Amino acid sequence: MAAIVSAGFARFGKRKDSIMDIAAESAMPVVRSHRDEIDFALVSNCYSGEFNGISGINNLLTTYLSMDAVPSIRIDNTSGSGGAALFTAVSLVESGRARCVLLTGVEKMSERPTKEVTRIISSLLGDREKAAGPSLPSFAGLLTTLYMREFAATRESIAQVAVKNHRNGALNPNAHIQKVLTLEQVLQSNVIIDPLRLFEISPISDGAVSLLVVPDPEAPSFTDKPVHVKGIGMSSESSHLTARETLTDMPSVRRAGEIARRESGIDRPDLAELHDMATVLEIVEMESLGFYPRGEGWKAVLEGKTEIGGELPVNTSGGLNSKGHPIGASGVAQAAEVYLQLTGGAGGRQVRDARTGMAVSMAGFGNSATAAMMGLEK
Amino acid sequence: MAAIVSAGFARFGKRKDSIMDIAAESAMPVVRSHRDEIDFALVSNCYSGEFNGISGINNLLTTYLSMDAVPSIRIDNTSGSGGAALFTAVSLVESGRARCVLLTGVEKMSERPTKEVTRIISSLLGDREKAAGPSLPSFAGLLTTLYMREFAATRESIAQVAVKNHRNGALNPNAHIQKVLTLEQVLQSNVIIDPLRLFEISPISDGAVSLLVVPDPEAPSFTDKPVHVKGIGMSSESSHLTARETLTDMPSVRRAGEIARRESGIDRPDLAELHDMATVLEIVEMESLGFYPRGEGWKAVLEGKTEIGGELPVNTSGGLNSKGHPIGASGVAQAAEVYLQLTGGAGGRQVRDARTGMAVSMAGFGNSATAAMMGLEK
Repeated sequence: MAAIVSAGFARFGKRKDSIMDIAAESAMPVVRSHRDEIDFALVSNCYSGEFNGISGINNLLTTYLSMDAVPSIRIDNTSGSGGAALFTAVSLVESGRARCVLLTGVEKMSERPTKEVTRIISSLLGDREKAAGPSLPSFAGLLTTLYMREFAATRESIAQVAVKNHRNGALNPNAHIQKVLTLEQVLQSNVIIDPLRLFEISPISDGAVSLLVVPDPEAPSFTDKPVHVKGIGMSSESSHLTARETLTDMPSVRRAGEIARRESGIDRPDLAELHDMATVLEIVEMESLGFYPRGEGWKAVLEGKTEIGGELPVNTSGGLNSKGHPIGASGVAQAAEVYLQLTGGAGGRQVRDARTGMAVSMAGFGNSATAAMMGLEK
Repeated sequence: MAAIVSAGFARFGKRKDSIMDIAAESAMPVVRSHRDEIDFALVSNCYSGEFNGISGINNLLTTYLSMDAVPSIRIDNTSGSGGAALFTAVSLVESGRARCVLLTGVEKMSERPTKEVTRIISSLLGDREKAAGPSLPSFAGLLTTLYMREFAATRESIAQVAVKNHRNGALNPNAHIQKVLTLEQVLQSNVIIDPLRLFEISPISDGAVSLLVVPDPEAPSFTDKPVHVKGIGMSSESSHLTARETLTDMPSVRRAGEIARRESGIDRPDLAELHDMATVLEIVEMESLGFYPRGEGWKAVLEGKTEIGGELPVNTSGGLNSKGHPIGASGVAQAAEVYLQLTGGAGGRQVRDARTGMAVSMAGFGNSATAAMMGLEK
């Protein structure tokens, strides 16, 4: 197995800096003290071509960081790229093909107008859905309606996810949106896709996060407090959303979570970072992961169980919802938040005595999911 | 270590079919008899967004192939993607995280005009080179001039690579260009970038190749004739071509080759597939790999040593030069050619008694390289 031994951040938000500057900003603190050890670089990124007119970003980054000879790959799995890249990093060190992987997740989205960004991201949909014209947010709207109807969930419970995540995000200096919101503010913000409101959908963000991933036995030579990846699973589901039996359950998330759980021997983590591109997704994922029974996740939110200080804090970082969603960076940021929490570096949003955490990185609408269970014990 | 146990092809050329159809065409024969065993899919592809307006191609492919739950990743390392994807596949099976990887390399380039294709591909250059305006072919022209000057190589020796590779490609039913050319025809074709001529630069192609990669011990349950990846290495070099000491030596290729050699214990393969995006590159790579002393590769070409039947056949497939260069597919196609040669499936271009072969996949101008040494013995 592998361990995370360092994390670096470039604040999420609308940034003037170039994508390469942002990527390097997050990598610098990680690289500085370990330049000679790093023997592989993975860049989690989806749209550097479409958004920034750049290809070969992985090679450009190693050049930028003066690690010319270090081999590198760009890992893409759309919004689930970060999880897929962590999975690849773990596999690389487990196979012995790398001994110290720099994993940088980065995206710079704000160079393009919102409409174009939405169109580009929706290019991951199958032909059938594309022909019908919907974007990913429209599926999130549909899912919200379906979930509320199927499980008699209140509108407030869905919006409460945004209240919680913005409260958490306001405690995260690297979050895009640092603003505490009331339930009323969320419910009265502009309708994006009925019934979803502005503050319930992740903003378009720039940003980067870097991690250092090494084999477990090597971890102590890097840090006193490694965070071990104790279990990690990936699974997929049809890209054709309309071909699925239901949208209110996510088999890819369920299966990925089962693998992470089985490998780690940990049933329930002390905290979890989930892929809340839209508020309703956090609830559906909690259920698919078995944290709460199907159709009851919304109650856990209303009861405050998923807040910092609750029985299972979810998205202490602010989640994609408030922290922002620079696509290639998001999954890496999730693992980085777990790293911060387990090593006691989460500042004002620190979960007390957190020893295990799960990060779930998702592509599309559960088209793919990677679940990583992390812990302080080896 | 890992073994290749199956290969499937979609002919390279200008294709009317969609990128998904082309990818699936190559994967179908590989998937058909092993659908239940495949537990991971890697798609080697660089520009599906820029060329085809598609993202999430890996997930779209598993959906297309009715392997909905199979996790997948898109692997990008520009023109070296195929090698990077093979490296990743090997790592996945070595780590035990996958037991049967479908590796599909695909690109559909002909949807865009040549000028736009060149511009998109040149987006891998560093800012300095971009600002100066040159494209990758212009560097190939420069390298040709430098090589000829530095080593007193004849113009004919460079063009002879195209003669050889077109002769080989004419024997490959999956090659883009199937036309035997004389030295005169090559040297009298249109100047693309002085002194390089049309037939010395790989064409813009569509196409796909699929491989099945499994752990060595599992290979016999798939086929009587597995081809073992006995050594595989990756290395990089600065993306800033102007920052390099020389262009006539490729340190990334040299280092990758050394790793492949050391791991495999094989010094000199029976044949090699090299990245001849331009004729001169094949010669420089042969030298960087140590097949011939520096500055003498051109003589080996003139003496016929690298022809089928020569002491070290190079690019029996026709190479990128004649087979075509659908970017994400090229590196996978190289490994597939070695697979065909070692399993006796290379038809009219079969190298007699070939038991070992090397595939060298390169990004940019040696920005990155992956060398894989393959063999029939485990």
